[in-house]
Amino acid sequence: MAPPPLPSTTIVPPFVSLIVRVVTLIFLLISLIVIATNSYTITVSFIDIKTKSTDFYAYRYLISTVVIGMAYTLLQTAFSIFFVTTGNRLGGEGFCLLDFYGDKFISYFLATGAAASFAMTEELRRLSNSDIDKFLNTSNAAASLCLFGFFFSAASSIFSSYNLPKRA
Amino acid sequence: MAPPPLPSTTIVPPFVSLIVRVVTLIFLLISLIVIATNSYTITVSFIDIKTKSTDFYAYRYLISTVVIGMAYTLLQTAFSIFFVTTGNRLGGEGFCLLDFYGDKFISYFLATGAAASFAMTEELRRLSNSDIDKFLNTSNAAASLCLFGFFFSAASSIFSSYNLPKRA
Repeated sequence: MAPPPLPSTTIVPPFVSLIVRVVTLIFLLISLIVIATNSYTITVSFIDIKTKSTDFYAYRYLISTVVIGMAYTLLQTAFSIFFVTTGNRLGGEGFCLLDFYGDKFISYFLATGAAASFAMTEELRRLSNSDIDKFLNTSNAAASLCLFGFFFSAASSIFSSYNLPKRA
Repeated sequence: MAPPPLPSTTIVPPFVSLIVRVVTLIFLLISLIVIATNSYTITVSFIDIKTKSTDFYAYRYLISTVVIGMAYTLLQTAFSIFFVTTGNRLGGEGFCLLDFYGDKFISYFLATGAAASFAMTEELRRLSNSDIDKFLNTSNAAASLCLFGFFFSAASSIFSSYNLPKRA
C-alpha cells in the first residue's frame, strides 16, 4: 500500500488555479457585503419596523455558507500564492486529498446557500406586497453572486480532482 | 497529447459503485413519491381548497432535480450492472470523463433541490398556522430523502474522480 511517486507536473497551471481562487473570493466578498447590508423598513402607526436579512433563516444560511467559503478560499489562495511564487507545493499527497475533499465540500455548501436563498426570495415575492421588492431584488443579487462564487469553486473542485494521486 | 494507457484496475470495486447507485436510486424514488403525493385541503365557506406541492416553486424544483437525478442514476446503474456482470467497462476514457462530470453535476443539482425545499418549508412554517404542519413535515421528509440521495450521489462523484485518467 505504499503510495506511488507523485507526478512532478500538475495538470492545471498553478496560476490558473490561483486566478480561479481569487475570482471566487471576490464574488463571495461582494455577496457577503450585499446580503449583510440588506434591510427594509416599514412604518406602521408611526413606528418604524426594520427587517434585516438575518431575520430569515435562508439568508442567515447564505451568510454562513459565504463566510465559511471565504475562509476556506482565503486559505487556499495563500497556499496557491506560495505555490506560484516558490514553485514548491505544500505537503504532497495529503494536501492533494485536502484540496479534493475541501473543494468538494465547500462547492456543495455554496450551491446549497444560493439555492436556499433563491427559493426563499421567490416565495416571499409571491406572499408579500411590492414594498419589499427592492429588498428581495438585493437578496437575489447576493444569491446570484454566491452562485457565481460556486461556479468558480466548482472549477477548483474539478482541478483538484485531476490532481488526485492515482491509486491504481 | 496521446492519452496514457488506462490502468486495468479501478480504485473502487465495481459492485461497491453499483450498490451506491442503487441506494441513491431508492432514496430518490421514495423522495419523489412522498413529494408528489403531498397535499393539504382547507375548507373556506364550505369550499374545499386543495394545495399541492406543485403549487410552490421550491417543491417543483425538488421534483425536477429528483426526476433528472433518477434518470441519470438509472442509466449509470445499467452501465454498472453491465460492468459487474461482464467485467468490461463501456467506453474507456470518454466514459470516465462522462461519469466524472455527470456525477458532479447531478450531485450539485440534488444538493440544491434539497436546500431549496428545506428553506421553503422553514419559512412557510413561520408564516402559516398549524393547519399545514403535516404538509410541511411531509415536504421536509421528501427533502431529507433527496439529501440522503445526494450523499450517495456525492460518494459516486468521489469514486469517479478517483477513476479519472491521469493526464500528467
